[in-house]
Amino acid sequence: MEYSCSAYELKCNECGKSFGNQPLSACDDCLAPLEVHYDLEAVRAEFTREKIAAGPANIWRYKALLPIPAGFEPDLPVGFTPLVKAKRLGKRIGANNLYIKNDAVCFPTLSFKDRVVSVALANAQAFGFETVGCSSTGNLANSVAAQAARLGLRACILVPADLEPAKILNTLVYGARLVRIDGNYDHVNRLCTLIADDYKWGFVNVNLRPYYAEGSKTVGYEIVEQLGWKLPDNVVCPMAGGSLIRKIRKAFNELIALGLVEDKPVRFFGAQATGCSPISTAVKQGTDYIEPQRPNTIARSLAIGNPADGPAAAKMIAATNGWAEDVSDVELASGIQELAETEGIFTETAGGVTTAVAARLYADGRISEDETTVICITGNGLKTTDAIANRYEFDRAVRPRLADFAEYLEELDGVREPEPELVEV
Amino acid sequence: MEYSCSAYELKCNECGKSFGNQPLSACDDCLAPLEVHYDLEAVRAEFTREKIAAGPANIWRYKALLPIPAGFEPDLPVGFTPLVKAKRLGKRIGANNLYIKNDAVCFPTLSFKDRVVSVALANAQAFGFETVGCSSTGNLANSVAAQAARLGLRACILVPADLEPAKILNTLVYGARLVRIDGNYDHVNRLCTLIADDYKWGFVNVNLRPYYAEGSKTVGYEIVEQLGWKLPDNVVCPMAGGSLIRKIRKAFNELIALGLVEDKPVRFFGAQATGCSPISTAVKQGTDYIEPQRPNTIARSLAIGNPADGPAAAKMIAATNGWAEDVSDVELASGIQELAETEGIFTETAGGVTTAVAARLYADGRISEDETTVICITGNGLKTTDAIANRYEFDRAVRPRLADFAEYLEELDGVREPEPELVEV
Ligand SMILES: Cc1ncc(COP(=O)(O)O)c(C=O)c1O
Ligand SMILES: Cc1ncc(COP(=O)(O)O)c(C=O)c1O
Ligand SMILES: [Zn+2]
Ligand SMILES: [Zn+2]
Repeated sequence: MEYSCSAYELKCNECGKSFGNQPLSACDDCLAPLEVHYDLEAVRAEFTREKIAAGPANIWRYKALLPIPAGFEPDLPVGFTPLVKAKRLGKRIGANNLYIKNDAVCFPTLSFKDRVVSVALANAQAFGFETVGCSSTGNLANSVAAQAARLGLRACILVPADLEPAKILNTLVYGARLVRIDGNYDHVNRLCTLIADDYKWGFVNVNLRPYYAEGSKTVGYEIVEQLGWKLPDNVVCPMAGGSLIRKIRKAFNELIALGLVEDKPVRFFGAQATGCSPISTAVKQGTDYIEPQRPNTIARSLAIGNPADGPAAAKMIAATNGWAEDVSDVELASGIQELAETEGIFTETAGGVTTAVAARLYADGRISEDETTVICITGNGLKTTDAIANRYEFDRAVRPRLADFAEYLEELDGVREPEPELVEV
Repeated sequence: MEYSCSAYELKCNECGKSFGNQPLSACDDCLAPLEVHYDLEAVRAEFTREKIAAGPANIWRYKALLPIPAGFEPDLPVGFTPLVKAKRLGKRIGANNLYIKNDAVCFPTLSFKDRVVSVALANAQAFGFETVGCSSTGNLANSVAAQAARLGLRACILVPADLEPAKILNTLVYGARLVRIDGNYDHVNRLCTLIADDYKWGFVNVNLRPYYAEGSKTVGYEIVEQLGWKLPDNVVCPMAGGSLIRKIRKAFNELIALGLVEDKPVRFFGAQATGCSPISTAVKQGTDYIEPQRPNTIARSLAIGNPADGPAAAKMIAATNGWAEDVSDVELASGIQELAETEGIFTETAGGVTTAVAARLYADGRISEDETTVICITGNGLKTTDAIANRYEFDRAVRPRLADFAEYLEELDGVREPEPELVEV
């Protein structure tokens, strides 16, 4: 075991019991999830605005507050994705200070899961695992397969059998072993818990989960740094297992504790698809008891019916005076189109959910127009093309002649262009 | 016209005639392409290593040497993609100092075309165009559609009718008008020249081509900066119109002229698919006369049979003592797999071409193992999934029980795992 760094260790979220550093996800006393805790004083000198700004343009600029084994030299750039002001989307939904955190273009596999996987695999290597894996709704599969390939680790990845074709191909291409399971994500996940135990493999979101989850904090660090070391008023974030949304808040709290950003209330808003909405249902009912659901939505990446961090996410959202919403499959597909048409960002189903939920929150007055709000777009649209493909028609092909082109435009518009544009040269 | 900056203007590549700044791509005297020329002395003070390093983590850090109209405030992050050391691919192909410039994850639409489009559209706006467009083999279509959407410009995009479905959807989703032309890219391009004239539209790779092409220089700037302000020995680059490869060299030469990097010979190697190899054929024959071809390859993004910058590219490659190679469709598909399996990078057909050509160059001894070589991966594999989908089988689904999983692994391997891994905790 390579852990010589004593700045962090696993602790039980319920009873506070310490577990050092090991591949373990739950407390043996109370079965609650374990989480990484830091000795913030020990890293204070390393984690300053100046040192961060002098770091590389990727998540490793924040490595002093990531659970990275001593001696680990990060060499794969991950994250530090754009935060862009969304003026045109804002105009459509009535938001004056809207930002998009765009992990649709995250390195290397186009979802925020690259962040969690890079941290998890650093630990998998330190613990000596030669085979790594995960249970996945798709994006995690892509990222584990790709990053394991680069590190020369064997990968065994389990997914629900009916996953989107692009996500399956984007796992196989890296040479990973992909096992399609006859069941939904919750079946897959339970099986993975058994496999991790029996085969002694490093499953990033099972026995390595506490380390894995910390990678999501980097979304929060980046948002604050990219806002010029300011907190937003609101964060709108998709939820599946319920981990990402909590870790963004953890990141904010660490920055506040270290004095890197001025404290102020930030409200967290969770987004789910109605066809799999155990967390948003709980939030709306004012409880943190999660009633498991059987998923039925095209938002496959969010289709976790029994979310590991669901109770904690529901509790956290309520504590920040936030809210959670869910939208139908039709609404999420329109959300994908709306984001693309206004901001030029093509997101997957999860991003369609988040965009549509954000619109609803403004429409319902839960967020008011001048507040600074960050929408987390977490995956790429090329992975879920079927969600919108049927909304477009392939029009007839046109012969390559100016007259045919003009005729075609007339057909479409009813009038002959050219337009009355004046070009000054 | 907004051009108040006098630091650059268009000049004819052949006769040197000046044209100021206007939407124009060829010299009226000799019909040769126009290119942007800078007054390097005027920008010397602005273009230093320190000022660049203090800039944003995107191509706008180099804006002093991009043809950006006065007053243009870039707000879309583009580029500054990872340069990664490729140890595992290097091992497979016999290269000890191999790097990959990974534009498969370029912002915002996952190809290097985002670079050229952002520069072209800045100029389109300055020239007053309200409708922009392009002729495209796919990636350019995606990028023009996305960036025009964000800027609120109308877009009209022409493509060969049989383009890959993902590239078509990834154009339509942004709300662009997409016209499928019954012909190959060269037919489309000729038609666009007529349309740009007749309709007074800003076609990024037609009447805005000189500005557009400059955007590709940023690949070269980034390579040098990411190598620690050093030039590589070799660059391997895909070629379609022949623009990108030339502009990488132009970037190197500008950095040398300004004293930002030490001069040394850099050899340039072009990569094409055999089914559309007008430039590599010319290079191999020792000429810069380009015999047009009728494309027949799955590398659709490189399928330009009559490349606008072909002669100049062939001449440049020869001048650097470089070479050009072309590979079959089968080889390029294997190239896609090889890059994914070794480096965790999923590229499109163009990247498969480049990877396979690089392997060939090492195998043939045209590049020797210790030289520093950069392979330019220019687009994302999710856009051309059909190129490799038939190489994978969807295996049977497995019931979610440990015993069924074990049985399934036995089936695959002939032996029962678990493996003899020891995990120290
Ligand atoms: C694209 C995308 N967004 C959001 C999420 C939700 O993340 P979490 O499980 O941490 O709630 C996932 C999880 O798979 C995802 O794939
Ligand atoms: C992915 C990709 N790589 C490379 C190229 C070649 O660029 P150029 O036309 O500048 O030679 C293209 C052009 O379309 C492309 O789409
Ligand atoms: Zn406990
Ligand atoms: Zn001339």
